[in-house]
Amino acid sequence: LLSEAQRKRVDVVLVSPRNPLNIGAAARAMANFGFARLTVVAPFAAHWREARSAIGAPDLLKKAQEVATLAEAVANCTLVIGTGTLTRRKAEQRAVLLPNLPPVMREEVARKGRRAAIVFGPEKRGLTREDLSQCHLLVEIPTDARQPSMNLGQAVAVCLYELSRIPVAGNAAKPRAQEMPDKADAATLDRLAGLVEQCAKAAGYSPAIMEAANRHDLRLMLRRLQFNAGDARRALGVFRRILWRLEHPRN
Amino acid sequence: LLSEAQRKRVDVVLVSPRNPLNIGAAARAMANFGFARLTVVAPFAAHWREARSAIGAPDLLKKAQEVATLAEAVANCTLVIGTGTLTRRKAEQRAVLLPNLPPVMREEVARKGRRAAIVFGPEKRGLTREDLSQCHLLVEIPTDARQPSMNLGQAVAVCLYELSRIPVAGNAAKPRAQEMPDKADAATLDRLAGLVEQCAKAAGYSPAIMEAANRHDLRLMLRRLQFNAGDARRALGVFRRILWRLEHPRN
Repeated sequence: LLSEAQRKRVDVVLVSPRNPLNIGAAARAMANFGFARLTVVAPFAAHWREARSAIGAPDLLKKAQEVATLAEAVANCTLVIGTGTLTRRKAEQRAVLLPNLPPVMREEVARKGRRAAIVFGPEKRGLTREDLSQCHLLVEIPTDARQPSMNLGQAVAVCLYELSRIPVAGNAAKPRAQEMPDKADAATLDRLAGLVEQCAKAAGYSPAIMEAANRHDLRLMLRRLQFNAGDARRALGVFRRILWRLEHPRN
Repeated sequence: LLSEAQRKRVDVVLVSPRNPLNIGAAARAMANFGFARLTVVAPFAAHWREARSAIGAPDLLKKAQEVATLAEAVANCTLVIGTGTLTRRKAEQRAVLLPNLPPVMREEVARKGRRAAIVFGPEKRGLTREDLSQCHLLVEIPTDARQPSMNLGQAVAVCLYELSRIPVAGNAAKPRAQEMPDKADAATLDRLAGLVEQCAKAAGYSPAIMEAANRHDLRLMLRRLQFNAGDARRALGVFRRILWRLEHPRN
């Protein structure tokens, strides 16, 4: 169970939602379970307008943030959680079942300065591999193998229910009591990834044809490695210096 | 968590649903969570026809039973559970919060010859006092007091999710048993540290006086980051190439 202050540190992110009714349903579920911060990535303009102007649309839908890319949406988040099923693919990052998400989420947002995002893909195809490479963690709703794919509004409702669910006495999980340093946010990791890529390129690390695949692997790896803010700062410093030297060789 | 045989002893009952999309959504959530028996009480004829004939309607919707009264719908059930919020009225029967429902349900349907029904009211007004008088138990989804009332399709999804939810064992924070990749061993990390140091030096990253302190910090950081074997291999490759280029500048 997240406290009210903790819920304020959770963003719900919808990537390119298509159906205005689903957008409305997602917003309503947020209101039902006490979440207020909605971000919509690259929505279909007409549908997005329609959803926001619907009669009875909750306030949080009107105040929702609209951005062009998932990277922007999660830039200041320290934990990005992608949703989906693993029936058709193997996860490239750590995956948890939804009932196991609350302690992970609570541990994150219990700390000041941390923010988490829970990200939902478009109705038809879900999150792409590219989208998921921006996520630290994949959460899977346990569904029947014969009909694994959930409706968007219902998936949002079920996830937020789980996060605001009052734990049944006896199996409440204790968050690890330990001082943890600041985690690097997504924007910092992207900056670091960009810099590493430039260095690799300047050093002629691999042929151009491998660029996209390398970028993808690098993004996953940086999220796996769990840089704290200081680590990221140090790594940025080293790579900046290396890049400068690669571009200004001593003769 | 209900077994498959136990789920077959659970009826989902919708009382006078109005919106065909909600009927479809309820049916879809049933399919998602492995429930198959749907009964609809006194539906609005046109809407009911529309819902059943929708493209992609799950099989269970086509096989749904249609009856005139709630009494008929639950006639052969030994436990009837009404859904709703208690914000506007006092419960006249025993009420439980949704997270506490599974053990009650399980105890019922674990026995042969027992059947349970979970009953949802119409979109606007919910179940009436009269409807509730047919219920043994009232279940309440814990929602925010400012927006307590849930969309029908989402309420069904959340309830069925809870009933098919895998109970969290003692220590909930553990991710699902999953193959964890090999961790990089200490020798590999030291090789990597040495290489990073050489690169930093070749790039003129910091004065010689800082060398020992930097080496120490770097070693700590590489252990914090928890490289797996593949990550370490990749990082070694990149830094080897960078070092080679720093030492062989293009003129």
